[in-house]
Amino acid sequence: MSYQAPLEEMNYLVKQVFNVENTLSAIDSFSEFDIELYTTVLEEAAKFSENVLLPINHEGDEIGCQFENGQVTTPPGFKEAYAEFCQSGWQGTSGDPEYGGQGLPKTIHLLIEEMIFSTNTSFCLYPSLTNGAYHAIRAHASDTIKQLYLPPMLEGRWAGTMALTEPHAGSDLGNIKTKATEQTDGSYLVSGTKIFITGGEHDLSENIIHLVLAKLPDAPPGPKGISLFLVPKIKINEHGELTETNQVSCGSIEHKMGIKASATCVMNFDEAQGYLIGEKHKGLACMFTMMNLERLSIGVQGIGLAETAYQLSRNYAIERKQGKSQSAKLASIIEHADIRRMLLEQRVHTEAARALMVFMGTQIDLQYHHQDAAIRENAASLMSLLTPIAKAFFTDKGYEACNLGLQVLGGHGYIREWGLEQLVRDAKIAQIYEGTNGIQSQDLLVRKVGLDKMQLMQLLYDEIDAELAIKTSLPAAYQLQQQLSSALQCHRQTSQWIVQNIEQRFFEIQGGAVDYLHASGYLVYGWLWLKMLNQLNDELGETFCARKQLAGQYFCEHLLPNINQLCQKVGTGYQPYMDAEQSLI
Amino acid sequence: MSYQAPLEEMNYLVKQVFNVENTLSAIDSFSEFDIELYTTVLEEAAKFSENVLLPINHEGDEIGCQFENGQVTTPPGFKEAYAEFCQSGWQGTSGDPEYGGQGLPKTIHLLIEEMIFSTNTSFCLYPSLTNGAYHAIRAHASDTIKQLYLPPMLEGRWAGTMALTEPHAGSDLGNIKTKATEQTDGSYLVSGTKIFITGGEHDLSENIIHLVLAKLPDAPPGPKGISLFLVPKIKINEHGELTETNQVSCGSIEHKMGIKASATCVMNFDEAQGYLIGEKHKGLACMFTMMNLERLSIGVQGIGLAETAYQLSRNYAIERKQGKSQSAKLASIIEHADIRRMLLEQRVHTEAARALMVFMGTQIDLQYHHQDAAIRENAASLMSLLTPIAKAFFTDKGYEACNLGLQVLGGHGYIREWGLEQLVRDAKIAQIYEGTNGIQSQDLLVRKVGLDKMQLMQLLYDEIDAELAIKTSLPAAYQLQQQLSSALQCHRQTSQWIVQNIEQRFFEIQGGAVDYLHASGYLVYGWLWLKMLNQLNDELGETFCARKQLAGQYFCEHLLPNINQLCQKVGTGYQPYMDAEQSLI
Repeated sequence: MSYQAPLEEMNYLVKQVFNVENTLSAIDSFSEFDIELYTTVLEEAAKFSENVLLPINHEGDEIGCQFENGQVTTPPGFKEAYAEFCQSGWQGTSGDPEYGGQGLPKTIHLLIEEMIFSTNTSFCLYPSLTNGAYHAIRAHASDTIKQLYLPPMLEGRWAGTMALTEPHAGSDLGNIKTKATEQTDGSYLVSGTKIFITGGEHDLSENIIHLVLAKLPDAPPGPKGISLFLVPKIKINEHGELTETNQVSCGSIEHKMGIKASATCVMNFDEAQGYLIGEKHKGLACMFTMMNLERLSIGVQGIGLAETAYQLSRNYAIERKQGKSQSAKLASIIEHADIRRMLLEQRVHTEAARALMVFMGTQIDLQYHHQDAAIRENAASLMSLLTPIAKAFFTDKGYEACNLGLQVLGGHGYIREWGLEQLVRDAKIAQIYEGTNGIQSQDLLVRKVGLDKMQLMQLLYDEIDAELAIKTSLPAAYQLQQQLSSALQCHRQTSQWIVQNIEQRFFEIQGGAVDYLHASGYLVYGWLWLKMLNQLNDELGETFCARKQLAGQYFCEHLLPNINQLCQKVGTGYQPYMDAEQSLI
Repeated sequence: MSYQAPLEEMNYLVKQVFNVENTLSAIDSFSEFDIELYTTVLEEAAKFSENVLLPINHEGDEIGCQFENGQVTTPPGFKEAYAEFCQSGWQGTSGDPEYGGQGLPKTIHLLIEEMIFSTNTSFCLYPSLTNGAYHAIRAHASDTIKQLYLPPMLEGRWAGTMALTEPHAGSDLGNIKTKATEQTDGSYLVSGTKIFITGGEHDLSENIIHLVLAKLPDAPPGPKGISLFLVPKIKINEHGELTETNQVSCGSIEHKMGIKASATCVMNFDEAQGYLIGEKHKGLACMFTMMNLERLSIGVQGIGLAETAYQLSRNYAIERKQGKSQSAKLASIIEHADIRRMLLEQRVHTEAARALMVFMGTQIDLQYHHQDAAIRENAASLMSLLTPIAKAFFTDKGYEACNLGLQVLGGHGYIREWGLEQLVRDAKIAQIYEGTNGIQSQDLLVRKVGLDKMQLMQLLYDEIDAELAIKTSLPAAYQLQQQLSSALQCHRQTSQWIVQNIEQRFFEIQGGAVDYLHASGYLVYGWLWLKMLNQLNDELGETFCARKQLAGQYFCEHLLPNINQLCQKVGTGYQPYMDAEQSLI
C-alpha cells in the first residue's frame, strides 16, 4: 500500500479555486490565520497520515477489533497512533478555542479528514464521531456541561458516539424504545439497547461520551417525542474528574464486511446516568446538528478511499506490462484505452468531489462564524441542500471508484495483500450509515426540493449561473460551459416537475429519488469542473493545467450527458410498481 | 441464509419460452429424454443445493481453505458434500455417455450450475473447472488419453484445472515462460510457475488433472507459440491406476476478498511429466474450447449470486418494518418506492440473464450435437458473439444486483452473519477471472463486431427482428416492442460506426468497448424480455403472468433507454485520452 497526500490539488482548491483566505477574511476568529499556515497544517497532516496511519491500516483490517468480557481491544498500533494523534492536537483542529481547540476553519479540517480516511478509514471514525458529538454538545448543552465535557473531548482524552439505532428502528427513529426518567437531582436514568454504535467501546480514550436518543415518560409518539441525552461511560464529578463506572456496557461487536478496526457495538444502557441535552422532545433536531456534519464527513470517506484507489491503480497501471500499445510495443497497461477510461473515471469524480467538499467547508465556516446574518443563512441553506448530495453522491461514486481501481489490478485487485479490496469493503458502509443513500435521496427530492418549492435548489442554480456567465477562452472550459448550460436547463425542468407533482404523487415519485440525486451530483460536479477550469493559470505549471483540462474534457464528454437520461427516468415515475401487490415485486 | 431454487422460472424457460424438448428433438442423443425428466433432474439439483451446499456456504467463507506443508484443506463439510455430489452423478450430468456421462443437454446442466453457484459459489468452482478441462480433453486429446482420463473426471474422482496465468502474464498469455521439452517416450517435461490456479490443490478428489499452457523449445514468439499439456498431480499407468506423485506442487494459496473456500493456488511444475493435447503451438485455440464454456459458466455465477441476493433482500424487505406506506401505516419496507426499485432492478436482470443462459444452452447443444452442419455453424456463431456479452454483462449486473441486495438490508447487509456481503465479495471475482470484463468487451467490439464486419451481430439482429415481428395484444409487450425496435436501430448504427472506424481508430475506439458491451447486453435483455412476455399464457397462472408483465414494463421504462446513451458514448471516442502523456491520466 502506498499513498501520497494530494497536497498540490488541495492547495490549488484552497488558494486558486476558492481563495479560502479571502473568503473567510471577514471572520474575526480566522483573522490571525493565513494561507501559509493552512499549507503547513496540511503538510503535517499528510505526514501523519502517510507515516503513522497508513502502516497500521492493513493489519488493522486483518486482525480487526477483538471483544472479550465486555472489553474491546483495537488492533496493534491503534492505541499508539491515537495517542500521537491527540498529542499533536489533531482532535482539536477546528474546535472552539474557548474549550481548547485551535479554531482552524472547517474547510481545512475537512481536507485533513480526507487524508485520514484515505490512509485508515477505521481509525478515522473514532475522532470523527468525537467531533460530531462535540458539535452537538457545543450547540445544545448547558454551559456547565460544555465546560466539563468539551475540553477533554477536544484533546481526544474522551471520545464520543452517536447512539441512535435500535434493533427495530434504523432509518425510522420514531420507533425507538430506549427510555429516560428524570431524577430528583435533575439527571436522568437511561435504559435501552442501541446497535451499530461506532466506537461504542474501545481502548483508545479514558472515557467515552455517548449521545443517546431516548423517550421520556410523557413523550408524544413518533419522532416528536425523542430527547437527547449525554451518557458518559465513566461518571465524572464537578471538577471533571473520572469517578465510577456508569451502567453502560458493550454487549458484543459486529463482524463486518469492512472497517474491521472500527468497533461497531451493541450498547446496553441499564439505568445509566445521563443528562438532557437541549429541550425535552427536541432531541432529533439537536442530533441533526451533529448528523449534518457527520453526513458530510461520511461523504469525505468516499473521497478519501477513492483517492487511494486511484493512486494504487494508477501506479499499478504504469508498472504492469501486458499487451501492445498504439506503437505496437509491449506496453504498460496505462496505454490501453479501457484502463485510461477507468483511471479517468476515478479521477474526475475525486477531484470534483474534493472541490465540493472545500466549497462546503467554506459554507460551514460562514454559517457558524460570519457576522452577517444573511450570509450565515445563505450558507446554511446551501449546506442543507448540498449535504444529502455530498453524502450520497460522494459515497456512491467513491464505491464505484474503488471498484474501478480494483478492476484495473485484475486478479491482483482481488488479493488481500494488494490493498484494493479492503478499500472496496471499507467504502461500502459509507453508502449505508448516517442515513442510507436512499434516505439521502428522499431528503433531497422530498424535503429539499419538492416541499421546499425549489427555493434551496434555486440558490445552487444561481451559483451555477454565475459561473456560466464567466467568459472563457479555454477550449475545454468553453465546451463544458455549453453542455453544462443545457444540462442545467434539463435539471431545472425536472425540479419543477417534482415541485408540481410532489403532493399528488408523494410516495410514487420517490422511486426516482436516487436518479434525481445522481443527476444533481453530476450537475454540481459540472459546475465545479467549470470552476476549476476557469481558475487555471500559468503559475500552476503546464502539466497541472493540462491534467485538469483533460479530466474536465472527459467529464464533459462522458459523464455530464448522464444528467439528461437520469432526469428522464425521474419523470417516468413509479406508479405501476407502487400499485402492485407485494407478491409481484 | 435461505434460498429456494427458482424452479417455476426455470420450468417456464425450459417449457414455454424455449421449448427445449422440441428445440433439441432432432438430436438423436437426446431423444430418450423428455420434459418430465428435465423437471425431475432440476428438482433433485434444487434439493441438493438447498440442503447440502447452502448449509456449508457461510462457514466455508468464515474458515476458508487452509494451506500447510503443500497441502490444501477445504472447509468443514466440503469433502462430504463433494463425495455426495459425485455419488449422485452430478459431475457427469452433461458428459458424454461414452465416458460414463449421462448425456443430458448443456441447457439443463447450466440451470443446475446456477443453483450450485447460488448456494455455494466456492464449491461450484471445483466441478466447474473439472468440467471445462473435460471439454478441452474430449475435443483435442488422443483416444488413449480420453479413455484414461475422462471417465474418472466425469465421476468427479479426478478434478481438473486450467493453468494459464503466470506472474507477469495474465490477460496477455503470449508472454508465458513455462517450458515443455519432449521426452523419448513421447511425453513432455513441463517446468514453470502458474498463479491464480483455481482448485490447483485440494483434498476433495483422488487426483487433479492440470491443463497447462507452456512453450516448446522451437516455439514461435507470442501467442502462436503456446502449446497445451495435460499434467496430472499423480501419475497413472496404462490401466488408469494411480502410481507415483508427479513433480507438481502447490507453493501457496491466495488470501482473497471472497470465494474463500475455493483454493486459488500458486502451482510449481518442476520437470513434471505431461502430455501434449492437440497440436504443437496450437494450445491457445485448444484452451479456448474450454474457455468459452468456462466464460459462460462464470456468467452463470453472476446469475446465481444475483438470484440469492434478490431472494434474501426481498424476504428482508417484507419482514422489516420502517416508515410509513401510502396508506399511512407502519409498513414493511417493501412498500417504499426506492426499495421496490432496488428489488425490481435485481429481478429484471436475473430473469433476463437466465433466459439468455437457457438460449445459449440450447445453442451449445445444437452446436455440438446437431446433424445439420448449417445449424451447428449458426449456433457456434451465435455462441461466439454472445459469450463475451454473457460473461461480462451477467457478472457486471450480477455484482450490481448483489450490491443492491446488500443496500436493501441497510446496516444488516454489512454484517457478515446476514450473508449478503459474502455474495458481494463472491460476485466480485466474476468480473475479473476467465478474462476481465474489459477483455470481454474488447473481444466483442474488436473481433466479434469490428473486424468481423458485423456478420455475427447480424445473426443476433435477425433473431431480434424475428421476435419483433410477432404480433402482440399484451400492453406491456406492445410497449416493449416499440421501444426495442428503436433501440435496435440505434445499436445497429453504432455497430456500423464501429465497423467503419475499427481499422483507422483501432486502439482509441476500444475506450468505448465496455459501454458497447453494456448496450449490447441491454439489447439482448430487451429481446428476451419481449420473448418472455410473448410466451405468457393463462396456464401459468395470474400471479406469474402479472409478475412477468410488471418486470417487463420496468425493464422497458427504466433500463432499455440506457442503450441510446451508451451508444452515444461509444461514438464520442477516446482519442484525446489516448494521445495524452501518461502523466496526464
